Amino acid sequence: MKLYGWMTAPNPRRAKIFVAEKGIGLEIFEASDPGNPGELSAEYCEKYPHRRVPLLELDDGDWIGEAAAICRYLEALYPDKPLMGRAPKETAIIEMWDRLAEWEGLMAVSEVFRNTHKLFAGRGLAGYDRDIPQIPELAERGNFRLGLFFDKIDKQLGRHEFLAGDRFSFADITALCAIDFSISRRLPIPENCAHVIDWHGRVSARPAISG
Amino acid sequence: MKLYGWMTAPNPRRAKIFVAEKGIGLEIFEASDPGNPGELSAEYCEKYPHRRVPLLELDDGDWIGEAAAICRYLEALYPDKPLMGRAPKETAIIEMWDRLAEWEGLMAVSEVFRNTHKLFAGRGLAGYDRDIPQIPELAERGNFRLGLFFDKIDKQLGRHEFLAGDRFSFADITALCAIDFSISRRLPIPENCAHVIDWHGRVSARPAISG
Repeated sequence: MKLYGWMTAPNPRRAKIFVAEKGIGLEIFEASDPGNPGELSAEYCEKYPHRRVPLLELDDGDWIGEAAAICRYLEALYPDKPLMGRAPKETAIIEMWDRLAEWEGLMAVSEVFRNTHKLFAGRGLAGYDRDIPQIPELAERGNFRLGLFFDKIDKQLGRHEFLAGDRFSFADITALCAIDFSISRRLPIPENCAHVIDWHGRVSARPAISG
Repeated sequence: MKLYGWMTAPNPRRAKIFVAEKGIGLEIFEASDPGNPGELSAEYCEKYPHRRVPLLELDDGDWIGEAAAICRYLEALYPDKPLMGRAPKETAIIEMWDRLAEWEGLMAVSEVFRNTHKLFAGRGLAGYDRDIPQIPELAERGNFRLGLFFDKIDKQLGRHEFLAGDRFSFADITALCAIDFSISRRLPIPENCAHVIDWHGRVSARPAISG
């Protein structure tokens, strides 16, 4: 199998961290165009017409896209060190928090990034080969939502050691990738979110993440 | 267990169809405010602070939100008539298509609806208790994306009987809920998408959906 990512983009990073946490030996390839690293390569887009990252290419030539689908597939193949739940209820609570982190966190910071960064003028949304204009109001809305996301997970992390309960899970990986992407865009964790700051330090120090 | 929905909203409908297809006997409750059916009830929002639908309340009082997490939980409890895959690769391909249908179809039509309907002025996005202004450019973008979504799934349905392959799955349910919501907003399936029109007729005639 081959895993394809794209530079520092947060969705491929979810898969890369998942693989590292579980200790899966998987070669990771770059999907960007060597001549223009701000674009996916033509070869990649031909392979995967949905034009999104990450992508898992199977040994039979079939492919699986979408970070969560890739990670769930790897979890089934490599059940040791489970990150998506050990029983149906735990799995469901992890998926709920993963989706909230994706929808309210990762999507919010992506709205800020894609609708303001000059490199992405005309590419306001991932996955399209047409012109998608940037929408300044959407960047503003993303920024507002991001603040509410920090408040929401600060409450949750005040009650639990990790986002979906008392074990590190895929939901933490998604939230970390959203927040690190936010920090890289100079949108740091608000100072009053002490639980998030504490959690961020603990999670960032994990060998699979700091290494 | 109790399943909560909200009138004709597409995400609760995904869960309702899933339950009907599998023949699970589950009581379904309405989350809207009886005095103001355009709003979730205060009681519901207190129970589920993420303010989204559907919601599954377990017998132990815990709850699971997010349609996909709820359906995956029910699939684990009631494995007969599998709708989320019988083996890891099939499961992954269904999840990939389900997420594409959610992201490129359901989110697109929701962007049109939430950013144009006068009942949702100041409520441009589900899940928030703050004012979220409508963004007319986002409605336009949603409409544009919806056209590309129809083209994409028309190609896929020209190659396969159903969205994720040759068996009806949760991905078909999500695409159907997105498309029926689109039709209800007077955005019909484009006439040149013959494969989608054929699939829509076949899927709509299933007893769990037409009944």
